Amino acid sequence: MTHSAFDDDTAIHPAPSGGWQAHLRSRWNVGNNPNGGYLLAVAVKAMAAEAGRPDPVSVTAHYLSPPTEGPVSIRTQVVKPGRTFVTVMAELVQGDRERVRVLGAFGDLTERRGPTRVSARPPDVPPPDQCVSLRELTEKAGRQAPEVMNRFDLRLPPGSPWGRPSEGDPFEITGWIRFKDGTEPTSVSSVVFADAFPPTLLGSVAAGWVPTIELTVHVRARPAPGWLLGTFRTRVLVDGLMEEDGELWDSERRPVALSRQLAMVLTR
Amino acid sequence: MTHSAFDDDTAIHPAPSGGWQAHLRSRWNVGNNPNGGYLLAVAVKAMAAEAGRPDPVSVTAHYLSPPTEGPVSIRTQVVKPGRTFVTVMAELVQGDRERVRVLGAFGDLTERRGPTRVSARPPDVPPPDQCVSLRELTEKAGRQAPEVMNRFDLRLPPGSPWGRPSEGDPFEITGWIRFKDGTEPTSVSSVVFADAFPPTLLGSVAAGWVPTIELTVHVRARPAPGWLLGTFRTRVLVDGLMEEDGELWDSERRPVALSRQLAMVLTR
Repeated sequence: MTHSAFDDDTAIHPAPSGGWQAHLRSRWNVGNNPNGGYLLAVAVKAMAAEAGRPDPVSVTAHYLSPPTEGPVSIRTQVVKPGRTFVTVMAELVQGDRERVRVLGAFGDLTERRGPTRVSARPPDVPPPDQCVSLRELTEKAGRQAPEVMNRFDLRLPPGSPWGRPSEGDPFEITGWIRFKDGTEPTSVSSVVFADAFPPTLLGSVAAGWVPTIELTVHVRARPAPGWLLGTFRTRVLVDGLMEEDGELWDSERRPVALSRQLAMVLTR
Repeated sequence: MTHSAFDDDTAIHPAPSGGWQAHLRSRWNVGNNPNGGYLLAVAVKAMAAEAGRPDPVSVTAHYLSPPTEGPVSIRTQVVKPGRTFVTVMAELVQGDRERVRVLGAFGDLTERRGPTRVSARPPDVPPPDQCVSLRELTEKAGRQAPEVMNRFDLRLPPGSPWGRPSEGDPFEITGWIRFKDGTEPTSVSSVVFADAFPPTLLGSVAAGWVPTIELTVHVRARPAPGWLLGTFRTRVLVDGLMEEDGELWDSERRPVALSRQLAMVLTR
């Protein structure tokens, strides 16, 4: 028994009949539905175990039907073994109904060799102790933060324009994030951080839940201990469909993950 | 029999034993390997037929092993039926070996309703008749363009910095593209255009083929007839792994597709 909510709630065990089993916990919920990044992390743990490779180099989840708190099984299939990457598919199933389908390439990022040139830069924001807690902001506004927000310490720069974009500007949210219980980030938990920020459109166009159709995360480095800096942006909302492009940077200012999701806007 | 190379070379037929069959043509090759977007288009045609939905709203391909010219079979599975989107998986197989695994959500983009706000803008480049043919540029440089480049008319702005990025700038290529034989673009062929430009790093870091590990395309609109304007950018190259983020705009300046791939750089 650890004291890490993430480690406890994403623990997987081999199933007697093959595949893997896990137990979903409602403390990762947004309303009645588990957060998509949390579901992906559970699948990714099973896939990494099946692959025998620790790092989710590229993983894509399609969300089919939201599960609820309780047991789930994860059926895994090695699509292609390989020296560099192992490609794995997973089906997250609850009550004989498939909830999430995942396809991914797994590897060991510490073994990669080749050229490095990074022109992207982390967003320029004040340090975490000069930023404001999203949870406090939400409560001050008289709204209740979804349960999953209690798993994170998420801080926005003072005067963040999130939820109040200027005409012609992208919908955007930027801030510091870490697990509230002090669990350090890993390549696997990066997929949770890639879906932990509130929707870019919340407060401006979207009223509440913005269901994800598909989420892809490229994990590019194992994060250093400490805070992650995340920035998420939506530039193309057309007929209620939007992308959300994310970047996660670690405390050493290295790019940890790039994410993109396609989501559907439920308007008020 | 059409006079469209794309329509001819991506034609699918129901296989007697279930699934679909197609015949790959080497005129879509980069060296000895079929272009990844071409392979994805063949799979997407089978998936759309299986889904009974015309538009590849979000498709992700993992490239496992390059096939060659000749027959392929495409096994399809409806992962989840649905009113709005149908989720489908496909395995492109040649000679009992799986070559590409694809997961996607299919829908009808003309039936979508909801808010629209686009802050992204197409790149500012001169019209096609003031741009220069990439194929001519390549031949003038004494190099041979890969066979697949003969399927497209691809034009770069005069003085394009592609292949010569300034210090600290992203690797980037922007230009106009259409099928050379006049075939108009569609939502399905958008996945080919999303992988038709030469690699952003070619000429600066990469010497030749930059194999794609995973490619995801979100098709956001059916393109209007005419030229597409494409822009592709790499901001994070770490240990030989890079993303390539693409945008395709149609002749009415509407965003048609957003793409991202993870690729591996083979250095000279």
